[in-house]
Amino acid sequence: MKNLKERRTIRKYSKREIPDTLLHEMLTLSERTPTMGNLQLYSVVITRDSKMKEKLSPAHFNQPMVKAAPVILTFCADFNRTTRWANERKAQPGYNNFLSFMNAATDALLYCQTFCNIAEEKGLGTCFLGTTVYMPQMIIDTLQLPKLVFPVATITLGWPDEMPSLTDRLPLESIIHHEKYKDYSLEKINDYYAEKESLEENKNFVAINHKETLAQVYTDMRYTKKDNEAMSETFISTLKSQGFLP
Amino acid sequence: MKNLKERRTIRKYSKREIPDTLLHEMLTLSERTPTMGNLQLYSVVITRDSKMKEKLSPAHFNQPMVKAAPVILTFCADFNRTTRWANERKAQPGYNNFLSFMNAATDALLYCQTFCNIAEEKGLGTCFLGTTVYMPQMIIDTLQLPKLVFPVATITLGWPDEMPSLTDRLPLESIIHHEKYKDYSLEKINDYYAEKESLEENKNFVAINHKETLAQVYTDMRYTKKDNEAMSETFISTLKSQGFLP
Repeated sequence: MKNLKERRTIRKYSKREIPDTLLHEMLTLSERTPTMGNLQLYSVVITRDSKMKEKLSPAHFNQPMVKAAPVILTFCADFNRTTRWANERKAQPGYNNFLSFMNAATDALLYCQTFCNIAEEKGLGTCFLGTTVYMPQMIIDTLQLPKLVFPVATITLGWPDEMPSLTDRLPLESIIHHEKYKDYSLEKINDYYAEKESLEENKNFVAINHKETLAQVYTDMRYTKKDNEAMSETFISTLKSQGFLP
Repeated sequence: MKNLKERRTIRKYSKREIPDTLLHEMLTLSERTPTMGNLQLYSVVITRDSKMKEKLSPAHFNQPMVKAAPVILTFCADFNRTTRWANERKAQPGYNNFLSFMNAATDALLYCQTFCNIAEEKGLGTCFLGTTVYMPQMIIDTLQLPKLVFPVATITLGWPDEMPSLTDRLPLESIIHHEKYKDYSLEKINDYYAEKESLEENKNFVAINHKETLAQVYTDMRYTKKDNEAMSETFISTLKSQGFLP
């Protein structure tokens, strides 16, 4: 993982294909990731077909990588397979509940991140699509996910055709706590966010959006209370229709 | 990530310490993991103090690694820091909702898995404690997590002092789907679970528990409907008290 220090999200890909042998090798190796009771509560839907990419695209706000990447991977929390196994083995499964969703989502996300670490070490580029949890029903319909299967992560995958600059990160002290959580004083907030707020790119962001602070760009434009509340409601109703909530 | 093929969970650790420099180097490198809007919606509580390990232990069903490992890391979904930043910057945060919990939990889990991959490449051993989501309130109280902070993963970390045998995994075909999800026929279930069911260790598991099938060991003993439903309720009520649900 030597290249991790230089890791950036890649949104533009070359024409070079990703052979199935390579893709399957990476997906197999990722299976070493820990999983609840060794049940592997995840599935991955592989999208290569351009028509399927077009159908998935609106669920991801039509971000251009979805149609342009050679491969899209949708990582799903999956208690369907385990439930079917139990049903075929005279066992009474009890996984149609919220804790089981959390267990399966955890398995799927850990598996996804190991896959990304492996793919990037091989020189591939990835873009993690946070949109997956915004309109999960569209993805469920497109990929025909049955009950007890829920998409929790999507990545676009391809050989890099760009080299964007490295994005900033908060100083380590801001994310670690020793023994107990130590809440953030104004002084600490000022200290930890100083670099982010001083970046030219972010200052420009504030200016073109006619905002007073960078935080306002996030709260008023990118991730608003109104959107979050609306998407929380649809997420919860989709959890119900997929069988993870009564 | 060459050693990943040989990756096993490590529950017994040598006396060798983990210096802060090494721990911090790994935690910093893990920050390259993608995160929602580059907000880094996670925190890590580092536990080295033996009294704190003792307090955490019951939340993890008193599994011995918690007291024996040199370091315990609790990875938390954290919208508190971002919310405080917004409050200090004349911005109106709207992250006290379920979607925001999912966003932050995703960030925390991806970060956690990159950390584990780095640590294991350095020769360290980890054990992922699935118990974190069983009784989150005990962890919240012990680590004094404020509202909008929620523990989603815990690992015990140390230099390996055992070499357990490699655990089985399902064949790749059982977890991947091409273009659309293809549900599992009885024939496929038989095929995919054959190896797992034929392992001596698992046969023994069935025998000593006086069960008829391996699946029954999971549904009747390890992960029961009754437990899952009770823990779903407490999880949801803890989401409410931590401010992620109305």
